[in-house]
Amino acid sequence: MLPGVEGSGPPVKETIEFARIVAFTDGVFAIAITVLVLGIDVPENLPDDNLHDFLVDSWPQLFAYFLSFAVIGRYWLSHHRTFALLHDFDRRLLILNLVYLSLIVLIPFPTNLLGEYGSEPDAVVVYAFVIGSASLLSAMMLRSALDSGHVAPANRAPAMEMSRGALAAAIVFYASIPVAVVSPLAGQLFWLMLVLDGVRRQRR
Amino acid sequence: MLPGVEGSGPPVKETIEFARIVAFTDGVFAIAITVLVLGIDVPENLPDDNLHDFLVDSWPQLFAYFLSFAVIGRYWLSHHRTFALLHDFDRRLLILNLVYLSLIVLIPFPTNLLGEYGSEPDAVVVYAFVIGSASLLSAMMLRSALDSGHVAPANRAPAMEMSRGALAAAIVFYASIPVAVVSPLAGQLFWLMLVLDGVRRQRR
Amino acid sequence: MLPGVEGSGPPVKETIEFARIVAFTDGVFAIAITVLVLGIDVPENLPDDNLHDFLVDSWPQLFAYFLSFAVIGRYWLSHHRTFALLHDFDRRLLILNLVYLSLIVLIPFPTNLLGEYGSEPDAVVVYAFVIGSASLLSAMMLRSALDSGHVAPANRAPAMEMSRGALAAAIVFYASIPVAVVSPLAGQLFWLMLVLDGVRRQRR
Amino acid sequence: MLPGVEGSGPPVKETIEFARIVAFTDGVFAIAITVLVLGIDVPENLPDDNLHDFLVDSWPQLFAYFLSFAVIGRYWLSHHRTFALLHDFDRRLLILNLVYLSLIVLIPFPTNLLGEYGSEPDAVVVYAFVIGSASLLSAMMLRSALDSGHVAPANRAPAMEMSRGALAAAIVFYASIPVAVVSPLAGQLFWLMLVLDGVRRQRR
Repeated sequence: MLPGVEGSGPPVKETIEFARIVAFTDGVFAIAITVLVLGIDVPENLPDDNLHDFLVDSWPQLFAYFLSFAVIGRYWLSHHRTFALLHDFDRRLLILNLVYLSLIVLIPFPTNLLGEYGSEPDAVVVYAFVIGSASLLSAMMLRSALDSGHVAPANRAPAMEMSRGALAAAIVFYASIPVAVVSPLAGQLFWLMLVLDGVRRQRR
Repeated sequence: MLPGVEGSGPPVKETIEFARIVAFTDGVFAIAITVLVLGIDVPENLPDDNLHDFLVDSWPQLFAYFLSFAVIGRYWLSHHRTFALLHDFDRRLLILNLVYLSLIVLIPFPTNLLGEYGSEPDAVVVYAFVIGSASLLSAMMLRSALDSGHVAPANRAPAMEMSRGALAAAIVFYASIPVAVVSPLAGQLFWLMLVLDGVRRQRR
Repeated sequence: MLPGVEGSGPPVKETIEFARIVAFTDGVFAIAITVLVLGIDVPENLPDDNLHDFLVDSWPQLFAYFLSFAVIGRYWLSHHRTFALLHDFDRRLLILNLVYLSLIVLIPFPTNLLGEYGSEPDAVVVYAFVIGSASLLSAMMLRSALDSGHVAPANRAPAMEMSRGALAAAIVFYASIPVAVVSPLAGQLFWLMLVLDGVRRQRR
Repeated sequence: MLPGVEGSGPPVKETIEFARIVAFTDGVFAIAITVLVLGIDVPENLPDDNLHDFLVDSWPQLFAYFLSFAVIGRYWLSHHRTFALLHDFDRRLLILNLVYLSLIVLIPFPTNLLGEYGSEPDAVVVYAFVIGSASLLSAMMLRSALDSGHVAPANRAPAMEMSRGALAAAIVFYASIPVAVVSPLAGQLFWLMLVLDGVRRQRR
């Protein structure tokens, strides 16, 4: 685990195995983000004057689309940075990664719920639960990698920082659930504060 | 076929051909696993009180989603390990791989059947047949690679072990078919035993 | 264009540009082949006894799925071999490749037509036209590469052989169109003969 | 920033990070272009004589499919050339790339609108707005890369040329919006002139 010893052989990251996992994960992210557009319906055979009204009414679906695109894009960037910190991986990390991906792939479902029923508590609760759980899994992956020594000593500090950030995001999303039960709009504004906090941290 | 001779040139696995087949296969797995989410419907224009009931009623679809996500993820890991054992491949293996993929890509169909009609024998039978056939093809790919000398001597033992495991999985899924005809629930519990057995083996 | 001169630098195929085109093409093939499964519908809320009848009635959709899976898989293998013969490419080839891909991506549409209306001439005609046109484009890509010297001298003979094979396939599919107008079944059996001929050639 | 200094280390483009972004972007393009086919509906249970009429009536959907396939293909080629000019990238470019991709992924939505309601102003307006905005983002990415010195001196001239081309395309699409409000057909012919202009430039 000493830095000098570590550098002696080719790092595990360069092997085809690691490359396949990264490529598979990127593929899943790329598809999940693209499937989002299938949630924006185009009804058939609308009478002539109704297309305009339909488009005006479809802004919640477009809002949900762009929100989830930003969320999945953000998670992909995080995953990207997480894997850049690893110099090794194991079966446990592989399994955690698959569980994490099962939540990322699920995102189009709560996105559709939010686009169709964004003013109802249930839709906001399901959305917050899925995204919060993905954040939790993200934190768990980082902790697992740290605990089993797959993070090089020089990368331990940023990995811990990222793990704390993911856990904080999970807590915010889970905390928005009781808020959304009372007021779905307040629940969604809760998430917005997380975004603003992220921007503030970025600036420091 | 002697180990010393084999190491003289760059292994076939490094060539662009092998890389394209692996990338194509990974791409197909990544898409098949993501298409699963499209089976979870979000109805439009539900009356206000009915969203909660709809979500409560959609747990069989979520169960089918996570089950098939685990199955496809598991098969991807196996495929991943299978190809890591090969040091060469041929046209026959390429064709078997395509037939195998045609069953993997089909999985969203029996998954939707299971999510919609999980309490009916036909849905469970079709699911077991497709997954069992994918296992059988997996075993056939390993046997074909072993028979034509595409597995390095050092990897023959793990390849045979994997081939036996795939064949055992195929038998369990096929054997669950008559069980599911009598009781769809018993047929599904049958698969669960396979999972538990896998966990037990992992621990040894 | 002399073989000795050609070998002086690293072949163009190794560059990131070529890799991106190949990866994009493989991605498109992988997605087009996976989207096929979305054509197999699972109706909601069927009465209890009707699932069995629905499954029995859905064999034409399953036939269309496996047929198109085999077609797309076959075209991917051909594309794969075509690009292995190239040592360079140009803008014209890039454009032809995109036109070719626009036909590959379209295949799920005639596949659905064939699955739903396989006994009607129009469905068989549209299917034959799309697949035949993809074959024609395949032959055009090979001719273009040969004409502009992107095929190494040693690879010219197999490239010409492949070009002739693609042209023959295009002619067979186009020739099946008038047959299908008279009898949709005879039109489909016409394609089967092409498959049998392919098997015969393989054996020689 | 001097050419001699730049060449001293391995270019950033070769790193795994850049490769992942390019692979992710290519994946998203490949999926967005393939999802287009899902917009071409195949109705179920049409009476016997109506399939022919349905196919004749579905030419606007096929036109929209091929138009958007050409648009996404064209943007992919541009993105491809843009990234070939970069020797470095930063977080800002990464974010711009994601915003750009959110518009590319959205394209199937206006494509469906155009295929179903191409004779109504709203459909043409939404299409022009989405494609024009993608062009604008494309120009912004190039400007950002130029401003932050991520384009090698030798590549600055072509990058500026491409940036101007992308901006011109954005202006044409935005300018077609008031035209389409008056006449949807004239709005679409407006785009055609852009294509003809592109062909003319290519020839010079």
